Amino acid sequence: MKSFTAVALEKFPLIKPGDNLAKIIVETAEKNCLKIEDGDVIAVAQKIFSKAEGRVVRLKDVAPSEKAREIAKKTGKSSKFVELVLRETKNILKASREVLLVEDVRGLVCINAGIDKSNIEGADTFAFLPENPDVSAEECRKEIRRLTGKHVAVVVCDTYSRPFRRGQVNFAIGVSGIKSLKDYRGKRDLFGYVLKVKNVAVADEIAAAAELLMGQATEATPVVIFKGLKDIVEFCEKASVRELEISREEDLFKDAL
Amino acid sequence: MKSFTAVALEKFPLIKPGDNLAKIIVETAEKNCLKIEDGDVIAVAQKIFSKAEGRVVRLKDVAPSEKAREIAKKTGKSSKFVELVLRETKNILKASREVLLVEDVRGLVCINAGIDKSNIEGADTFAFLPENPDVSAEECRKEIRRLTGKHVAVVVCDTYSRPFRRGQVNFAIGVSGIKSLKDYRGKRDLFGYVLKVKNVAVADEIAAAAELLMGQATEATPVVIFKGLKDIVEFCEKASVRELEISREEDLFKDAL
Repeated sequence: MKSFTAVALEKFPLIKPGDNLAKIIVETAEKNCLKIEDGDVIAVAQKIFSKAEGRVVRLKDVAPSEKAREIAKKTGKSSKFVELVLRETKNILKASREVLLVEDVRGLVCINAGIDKSNIEGADTFAFLPENPDVSAEECRKEIRRLTGKHVAVVVCDTYSRPFRRGQVNFAIGVSGIKSLKDYRGKRDLFGYVLKVKNVAVADEIAAAAELLMGQATEATPVVIFKGLKDIVEFCEKASVRELEISREEDLFKDAL
Repeated sequence: MKSFTAVALEKFPLIKPGDNLAKIIVETAEKNCLKIEDGDVIAVAQKIFSKAEGRVVRLKDVAPSEKAREIAKKTGKSSKFVELVLRETKNILKASREVLLVEDVRGLVCINAGIDKSNIEGADTFAFLPENPDVSAEECRKEIRRLTGKHVAVVVCDTYSRPFRRGQVNFAIGVSGIKSLKDYRGKRDLFGYVLKVKNVAVADEIAAAAELLMGQATEATPVVIFKGLKDIVEFCEKASVRELEISREEDLFKDAL
């Protein structure tokens, strides 16, 4: 039977700067009586990597630049918060009263460069995304292999708004151990027709599936382990979420909004 | 343990116009030794609804309008194919050599109004989306309840490209029995901070998860049954995918592409 199971690790501890996340994942899996096995795909909310990597900042410690002040005036946001966003931004796509939308330094298009407040201790404390989520995923994967001997994949994920559609979904922002895309182009369908376009962003689909269990509020389940995906996604040693980046020239939606 | 399992129904028969899909789903689940239970969420690829509803057309039978000929010239597409797209279109968002992007009659923003060729018998045969996927989902759900006595949810899904991101993912295009959104706004996080924005498109996340098992080529697994989502998504009698529609005014990404 073709199937997979997704399990959220419960009683996951709060993460502090310097924590060894891989070790905590392995230990918490044990406490959940869950064996880590070859072919498991482990989805991890970016927030706990941010915390472990110390990517957390207090607004009161931020000195806004002149540019940040300008944009703050235009958008109605705090100049200190805008300063944080600018530090993580490659291109500003839109700065209005409604939204500060950017292409971030990682190549990710998202609101506020992914900086947010939820599930971070301290009233004026915000979290940046992990500096390089692919590297975070890679280090975690290798450390899990060292600790358990098992070959797993790690997908770092975060929840974002999408164009044309209400509501947010979880996206993959870092990947290690599996390809981000599953390419059907050139393959045939049930009737022999050769597929021309289908190149599926399976890393995003895994992230989306994981969010159902992670939740957004007090769930405290930032890690979801998938069993059964081994023959569905392609395991590999060299992987990157950058596979999912698209240039403006290639983006079929350009000039459509 | 917080978990869910997704199972693809194998040996799913090819669907013909007039087929009772609910009955086929129930029978195929039995053949797979899978019990349909209260709280199951059943994800169904739109293509089999299209086939059962006879939403299939041969290009040779299509007479292109003047407008279709114009757009065909501009885009380099077949005027007959453009005619099909126009029949399903409310607004054309972009018509270029690269893409014909529309808001379809259902309110869905997608390429070619979701009309495609894959897994349809006949060299010049194309499938429209189901006329009203919410209604398709609702009828299927009610028929499954009649046949089994079980209260399930049905999510109709299809695979689309997204702006800013390479690769396609599965989206929900019709829903019955569960809310499409899970709204966290006003709820508190682990540290008491009140969430302001998070309103998660869980129907899209379920669709995305289902695609991992459905695939796009010769898998012949257009139905995926989820077990364990009962306490995660909100079951309800009145549901619609229209919850996921967003007006241009509300879309934070407008003017950003």
